[in-house]
Amino acid sequence: MLAIGVNGYGTIGKRVADAINAQPDMRIVGVTKTSPDHGASLAVDRGFPLYTPADRVDAFESNDIPISGTIDDLLAASDLVVDATPGGVGEQYLERYHEHDVPFILQGAEPDSAVETSFSAIANFDAAIGAKSARVVSCNTTGLSRTISLLDDAFGLTGARVSLIRRGGDPDQADRGPINDVLPDPVTVPSHHGPDLATVLPDITVHTMAYKVPTTLMHTHAVNLTFDTTPTPNEIRSVLDPERRITLLPADQGIRGIASIAEIGRDSGRPRGDIWETCIWDESIAVEGEDVFFTQAIHQESIVVPENIDAIRAMMKTASASESIERTDEHLGVGQWPGTDSAERVLSTANK
Amino acid sequence: MLAIGVNGYGTIGKRVADAINAQPDMRIVGVTKTSPDHGASLAVDRGFPLYTPADRVDAFESNDIPISGTIDDLLAASDLVVDATPGGVGEQYLERYHEHDVPFILQGAEPDSAVETSFSAIANFDAAIGAKSARVVSCNTTGLSRTISLLDDAFGLTGARVSLIRRGGDPDQADRGPINDVLPDPVTVPSHHGPDLATVLPDITVHTMAYKVPTTLMHTHAVNLTFDTTPTPNEIRSVLDPERRITLLPADQGIRGIASIAEIGRDSGRPRGDIWETCIWDESIAVEGEDVFFTQAIHQESIVVPENIDAIRAMMKTASASESIERTDEHLGVGQWPGTDSAERVLSTANK
Repeated sequence: MLAIGVNGYGTIGKRVADAINAQPDMRIVGVTKTSPDHGASLAVDRGFPLYTPADRVDAFESNDIPISGTIDDLLAASDLVVDATPGGVGEQYLERYHEHDVPFILQGAEPDSAVETSFSAIANFDAAIGAKSARVVSCNTTGLSRTISLLDDAFGLTGARVSLIRRGGDPDQADRGPINDVLPDPVTVPSHHGPDLATVLPDITVHTMAYKVPTTLMHTHAVNLTFDTTPTPNEIRSVLDPERRITLLPADQGIRGIASIAEIGRDSGRPRGDIWETCIWDESIAVEGEDVFFTQAIHQESIVVPENIDAIRAMMKTASASESIERTDEHLGVGQWPGTDSAERVLSTANK
Repeated sequence: MLAIGVNGYGTIGKRVADAINAQPDMRIVGVTKTSPDHGASLAVDRGFPLYTPADRVDAFESNDIPISGTIDDLLAASDLVVDATPGGVGEQYLERYHEHDVPFILQGAEPDSAVETSFSAIANFDAAIGAKSARVVSCNTTGLSRTISLLDDAFGLTGARVSLIRRGGDPDQADRGPINDVLPDPVTVPSHHGPDLATVLPDITVHTMAYKVPTTLMHTHAVNLTFDTTPTPNEIRSVLDPERRITLLPADQGIRGIASIAEIGRDSGRPRGDIWETCIWDESIAVEGEDVFFTQAIHQESIVVPENIDAIRAMMKTASASESIERTDEHLGVGQWPGTDSAERVLSTANK
């Protein structure tokens, strides 16, 4: 059983920790926090040993939150560490990961140059096999890489243009905007998303324009693709529908917007109402001349969770791509909608 | 001097009435309201004779709001009537406009089939010369028709794909959404905007995808175009920059989003802070391979105001396209930013 440390127990870290704990072949050896806040209490409640920088131990102990050791102790005890520290912070830990000679996974806000390979399970699992470091690409890039890599394989991509209508911040990021505004962000074209996609799909050019809008729920992508052989809408469906990490939202279910998807996530018994799938409105799949169009939605807080699990198995060489993806999805409940007992299983408080 | 009636004194009607009153060659003979609300009081304050359906006269008189006559009286007294009734209502008045043999202008929510021609000044002024009926296309279509028709003339359009990030409702539409949501609206592709554009630019196909987001301020368009001859960014600027109805937002002015544009509108001394121009972020103009990109913003409450004035002159054959556009822009203050005294002139309470 792989012993995994999670450095940074925030939006992504707490989800990855639960997902690791739900897998039969890996366990959480500990998680880190720098402040004794409600996230620290949550980690303790869930039975995850808590680690912190040496100079922060006192702050936790004076709040009666038990600390198992320093971050260096955690790195020494881990077979692999998942870095889920805030964007830009992960890079500051590189030296210590290398000192401890512990394989590490960074998240999408860190630079591709800091790791051996960027990673997205469906797009390039094999590139991370045996790697000592990898970077799971960002939520938007993960969502795009799934659909675009599958459709490229099937029909030969010749052009791609995506408008990203981005959520302004996560639900508990009270200092994020905008309110009643739409921000081209960046104003320049392309946004970083197209070039970021090339870190996992190097042969593909995707032109991306990005906008921040007043929602906290999900990102929305207006996707336009062209191919060597223009597929029909049903040929597109036949490629995407079998994938558990892609959900085609049926036309007759009244799923009007991203809030409807979030509501399904909450109804489904999933941990935190998470939506790990790239969600595509089935009715939006259209072919006009040579142009293929569809609209997809991406849950920014959770879509990278299964990819982090797969990156662990790729780097530790414990499963092939198809084996890992199937195992991850099965134990998380990816692709299972209402009726799953996923929350109960994934949010089990019993750490192994 | 042309005597113009405005049927419907709401968001568009009150703006068109002020803009007509600001022109030297036309005057408001009267405006209509069906309810004695604050809009009715505004019309009276501004010196516009108020007309209402015959069965509504009592409601106004019991509120001490003076009524000059019925809608039929207004139609009989008008050289031309601008219909600015709510979407779908204009069509119900067609029979009465025809009975009175009065030329009429409908707004973009009414069907193209109800009029001799749809209209957007830069795109197809001449199509409305001498017409007895015309339809000024919607705000989004007006904004798209300006930039796309000019660039098509200059470089020969071969493809167009636009993602429309639409405002959910106007500032005082308290019953409109969404809140914290993004709605593909419609889910299907294309949205009505592409086909609507073909009513003024029949030789052009524009693929449009549309989304409603939680803002009340402006629409935002992510525009992608391809041409027979791919222009450089500066060649694009040289076509768009001379047009008073198009504003290139400078990169160094901190104009981050549509709220920044709205703030400039409020600072500029314009009536109601209106923004009649198609606003393009200069920095967003990009050419990647054969693909041209830019982002533009559209003030849904006011962009069609100058087009209504031009449609009047085209239908009444009182000016050529260039004469009318120049006269409209000069007397409204289109293309003049901070420092204009436009509000003082356009919101003058002295009706002629």
